[in-house]
Amino acid sequence: MSPTPDWVKALKPSAPQGSDLIHLEREKSKIQVAELSAFLFTQKALDRKQEILEILKSEKVFDKSNNYFDGRRDRFVTALARAKRLRQLEVKHKWSTEDLIVATDLISEPGPYGLHASMFLTTLRTQTTPEQQKLFLEPAENYKYIGCYAQTELGHGSNVRGLETTATWNPEDKTFILHSPHLTASKWWIGSLGRTANYAVVMAQLVINGRPYGPHPFIAQVRDLKTHEPLEGIHVGDIGPKFGYNTMDNGFLLFNQYKIPHVNMLAKFSRVDPETNKYVKPQSAALVYGTMTWVRATIVLQAGGVLAKGVTIATRYASVRRQFQDRDATPADGPGENQVLNYTMVQFRLLPLLAATFALHFTGKSMMDMYLDNQKKMQEITSESSRRAPGPEEVQGGSDQLADLHATSCGLKALASTTAGEGLEVCRRAMGGHGYSSFSGVGSYYADYLPTLTWEGDNFMLTQQVARYLLKSARAVLKGKAPNNDTTKIFTTFLERQDMGAAYDILGSDSDLVAAFAWRASFLTFEALKRRDVEKNSWNSLLVDFWRLSTAHSQYLVVKNFYDALQSESLQYELDATTIGVLHKLFRLHALNTLEKEASEFYSSAAVTVRQIQLARTNAVMKLLEEVRPHALRLVDAWHFSDWQLDSSMGRKDGKVYEDMFNRASEMNPLNGLTVDPYPDHDVLVTRDESSKYKSKL
Amino acid sequence: MSPTPDWVKALKPSAPQGSDLIHLEREKSKIQVAELSAFLFTQKALDRKQEILEILKSEKVFDKSNNYFDGRRDRFVTALARAKRLRQLEVKHKWSTEDLIVATDLISEPGPYGLHASMFLTTLRTQTTPEQQKLFLEPAENYKYIGCYAQTELGHGSNVRGLETTATWNPEDKTFILHSPHLTASKWWIGSLGRTANYAVVMAQLVINGRPYGPHPFIAQVRDLKTHEPLEGIHVGDIGPKFGYNTMDNGFLLFNQYKIPHVNMLAKFSRVDPETNKYVKPQSAALVYGTMTWVRATIVLQAGGVLAKGVTIATRYASVRRQFQDRDATPADGPGENQVLNYTMVQFRLLPLLAATFALHFTGKSMMDMYLDNQKKMQEITSESSRRAPGPEEVQGGSDQLADLHATSCGLKALASTTAGEGLEVCRRAMGGHGYSSFSGVGSYYADYLPTLTWEGDNFMLTQQVARYLLKSARAVLKGKAPNNDTTKIFTTFLERQDMGAAYDILGSDSDLVAAFAWRASFLTFEALKRRDVEKNSWNSLLVDFWRLSTAHSQYLVVKNFYDALQSESLQYELDATTIGVLHKLFRLHALNTLEKEASEFYSSAAVTVRQIQLARTNAVMKLLEEVRPHALRLVDAWHFSDWQLDSSMGRKDGKVYEDMFNRASEMNPLNGLTVDPYPDHDVLVTRDESSKYKSKL
Repeated sequence: MSPTPDWVKALKPSAPQGSDLIHLEREKSKIQVAELSAFLFTQKALDRKQEILEILKSEKVFDKSNNYFDGRRDRFVTALARAKRLRQLEVKHKWSTEDLIVATDLISEPGPYGLHASMFLTTLRTQTTPEQQKLFLEPAENYKYIGCYAQTELGHGSNVRGLETTATWNPEDKTFILHSPHLTASKWWIGSLGRTANYAVVMAQLVINGRPYGPHPFIAQVRDLKTHEPLEGIHVGDIGPKFGYNTMDNGFLLFNQYKIPHVNMLAKFSRVDPETNKYVKPQSAALVYGTMTWVRATIVLQAGGVLAKGVTIATRYASVRRQFQDRDATPADGPGENQVLNYTMVQFRLLPLLAATFALHFTGKSMMDMYLDNQKKMQEITSESSRRAPGPEEVQGGSDQLADLHATSCGLKALASTTAGEGLEVCRRAMGGHGYSSFSGVGSYYADYLPTLTWEGDNFMLTQQVARYLLKSARAVLKGKAPNNDTTKIFTTFLERQDMGAAYDILGSDSDLVAAFAWRASFLTFEALKRRDVEKNSWNSLLVDFWRLSTAHSQYLVVKNFYDALQSESLQYELDATTIGVLHKLFRLHALNTLEKEASEFYSSAAVTVRQIQLARTNAVMKLLEEVRPHALRLVDAWHFSDWQLDSSMGRKDGKVYEDMFNRASEMNPLNGLTVDPYPDHDVLVTRDESSKYKSKL
Repeated sequence: MSPTPDWVKALKPSAPQGSDLIHLEREKSKIQVAELSAFLFTQKALDRKQEILEILKSEKVFDKSNNYFDGRRDRFVTALARAKRLRQLEVKHKWSTEDLIVATDLISEPGPYGLHASMFLTTLRTQTTPEQQKLFLEPAENYKYIGCYAQTELGHGSNVRGLETTATWNPEDKTFILHSPHLTASKWWIGSLGRTANYAVVMAQLVINGRPYGPHPFIAQVRDLKTHEPLEGIHVGDIGPKFGYNTMDNGFLLFNQYKIPHVNMLAKFSRVDPETNKYVKPQSAALVYGTMTWVRATIVLQAGGVLAKGVTIATRYASVRRQFQDRDATPADGPGENQVLNYTMVQFRLLPLLAATFALHFTGKSMMDMYLDNQKKMQEITSESSRRAPGPEEVQGGSDQLADLHATSCGLKALASTTAGEGLEVCRRAMGGHGYSSFSGVGSYYADYLPTLTWEGDNFMLTQQVARYLLKSARAVLKGKAPNNDTTKIFTTFLERQDMGAAYDILGSDSDLVAAFAWRASFLTFEALKRRDVEKNSWNSLLVDFWRLSTAHSQYLVVKNFYDALQSESLQYELDATTIGVLHKLFRLHALNTLEKEASEFYSSAAVTVRQIQLARTNAVMKLLEEVRPHALRLVDAWHFSDWQLDSSMGRKDGKVYEDMFNRASEMNPLNGLTVDPYPDHDVLVTRDESSKYKSKL
């Protein structure tokens, strides 16, 4: 297209300018942004993030200008270039794992080494013998082998036991034969496998002498190390475009009687004795149990941050965007339009999500602390036991706690990732028409985040595990044989007070508000228990009840963790009274808004009265929205996202929303390099194509 | 990549085959699919759709194979080629407007002539003088002028009065000067403008002698008819990529003191007298009022169909997909996994949406009937009046009815499009991991449909209009001066029975179920009225209440329309008892599920008791899911989508889900034409690129 004319370049947005509006908006609050950021993340981590950001910004390959314009091919190739450079920087600057996670988060796109750096290396580190570490882990750590983790199949997702790929032990030549008996056995969705990996950890059904032993991990080379072409007996490729995550090459993989040596079965936990051809049973898998808990705690912790990106962008935009006059405006209010953030309908959609970002953050931190605490405890027991045999109570105590932690982490993973995913879409839509532009950034955050709702346990499937644990705990409490943890404590309280009723003062007392959530979760647990154990309903007929129960219990945990975080000593020490006061309002907003949304379960359980819920809805929540509103912008500032990371016209910290949108459309949009012939009776489509000029090719 | 090896081609999915499963599933129900389709759409319309489908399928340009793979540039160019061919076919086959809509729906992507064929031509038809029709409409109808409708601006969406573009009357040379005084005045989001249009209808603030007269429509040429380059004083281009709708070139447009002749102001309703330089006031705009109602009725009608695409795809997939054994399965159940559709958690997500498709369809049809009925009535009054003056009651009656229709259409537009949009995403996620693949099709349906939630009135904004109307009606009822329509009738009933209470038998009586919805909507109306008129709360503080009120009223209308449709004579005549019985279950499922989701408003209003809601939740809804489940597949079949239209691996009518997914990934995915160098210490990225081979270039 013709370049932007000078008369256009001279134009500014109509007054008041976004930069002035956002400045005034920041002035409305006295929250200490820097202190709050440091409280949330530690100053050390913020400084480190800044250092890494500067390194990334100085590298041309990480420039984000073309991200919203490129098609899948170019996005993938660029992502590969970035992955390579990131690895080089990691080596050069001796980055820790934590540093690498920070860098990846700043780049904000999945990359082709994603599964190599996570699941492939982790599996090789935790499930191999020393010999296998030498053989496989060393070249993998040096990126001679680029790997992936091949578990899911075309016909089999969550149900690992249903996997079809077989690894048949061949006593003749001491090999395993990997084979895909059906099309549905094709490995599918395997990150980094589509075009990038040359090795794969493959979960396959072990078969010895015609007998199946269930799924086990094997390692297999899939592509030639020089030509990068698939090896004989292997069919591998990319599974095609997705709703998001298109910078990643999720792949498929089929084996045709593909032989791998005995040493390629990952043998730390179980193995095949090559002499006797016998299966050697695994040791306890408690370690894996722990890892799963760690992964889920991480998802909970990150969920707050992911949602905060969307809330930051939408809140900044709502501070700049003006639309309509207030309907009750008088001539004295002047002719200007109203800031969108002033509308209660917008506040009602955005501010509870703002509160949720903090609730999830504190919950994730607390989960991680509990996990680390438990790991320490378990380790002490184990190291004690090298000197003396540990008492059964000690072991039981540690593993009871881990079981509680594991179950609660399942429920929280489901709740947190659903809240973040769906919340991003609410943020995008709260921006009205412009939220639909790719330049908002929230659309791609949403699309890229969605897999988190499915992996590490599908969010609906997980609620069954939580319910199973809660029912088991409830049965133990009824029998008087319950371990001592928070879950059994709230159940005991419920049973003791059940006949008296609850009558919690949710509008006056914060601890009563938390207790109302505990009460509702307990009530639903014993209801479900009755339906299963007394009325003998089928498991399948109770799935919806279980999902409700898991959600209720997880909402209780989030509310409780937010409450506990506000009682912490460090809070009083690090933050001033104004900031603490606003955090407290956010807590109440989160809890009361959740209670109002789930009202019917709260009154059914008699945790609160109908009148209380009506007051919560029409008075308390609306008043809190009004009180939180002046602090919204500073609260999102405390999340400490740089413009470079967000890459959003609407989320610009300086409020120059319209300038940025216009610049991207008029100066950077390659479609404008295309001149077409528009007439239906002409066969010619494109008369001039300068679209490639817009592209800064790598 | 290497071609698919023969050993892979020989593979089938593991038994049982999807084709067998879906066949067995169809056998479970005796619903008469063909008769139900004909009842929903008429046999004539179905036959016509089939004819048009055959024409489209025979044209290579409409082949959908590359849709999921192409980047924006190629998708847009292909869409332009399709738009041209579609126009040629329209001429060749003498297609009616209705036929063209059918063809566009079958192609299922927005195209670059989209705004020309709708808003541009409609505006030229309805808002021009005969002279202007000759000058502009004729070449537009012959596609010499390709146009668009330029209203929204970068800084101004819903608030038309806030538009900044000016059209200043210049008495010297009898021209209007179009001008964009600020960057925010840039026209934005204008469909078909980005690369395609050479003309635009422009909404601009009319200024005469320094005085503003509000927004008016003008027509302006924006590109050269030969070179297709922008004219002097015009800056125009595409606004960039979006969350969806990327086959459409939404554009921006700025004017620099751009002169257009006097005749370019569309002058049917108001104009500037070129002799006196005076503004001539518009006649009544009732016609436009009617058009808006028609557009919204169309959105309601289409919402059912849009949602039905997602429900069809997800239901078919859930019939083929198997995952886990039932937890209560006994050895007698055999070793196979359970069909996903058997899980109550999946039924609970999908089947209420299936019910909603029918509810929306009947509601849309009823709205359209009422609209046409009103149009006829108004016309009769007008034609009568040519012989005698119409009585004031006649005119009042017609326009009261139109006002009611207009307000209810606003609320229903918001509810229906939100239900369809959000429902599509529920369908996508109900498919688990595979729902994330582009090959499901639902992702792009969702992304492309989302603008409907914003245009023709943002769904949140619209609820204010509905509330305003309901409050006005309530005031009229209180004063005893209410017109006679359904809204005032339910308010009157509510006021009469208010003191006695409701006590509706929602579980036993269908008409009571409808009445409970009417009661709740009425209750919320009078609550809102009290808060506004008695307590004198600000309009802004009530926006959330208004949104709840509008939703409640629209939900009542949908439930009522579904109920009424089941009472119709033609139903008894055209369908057998089994099919009618299942439709009746769908009605109850829709109504009770909605009631359960909105439980707290129902009990607050005392429309029902807490106990009734608990029973609705735990018994009635779950039982209905079980009863509807065997008919789900045939019910979606009745929506009559062809595989060609859906273009979905998961939604294949023959159940060959896995074969189709695999084929698209392994045979059609251009990313697999790319061989990369995966090592971080090598600068080379791509070692071989055969991706273009996959592309059937136009």
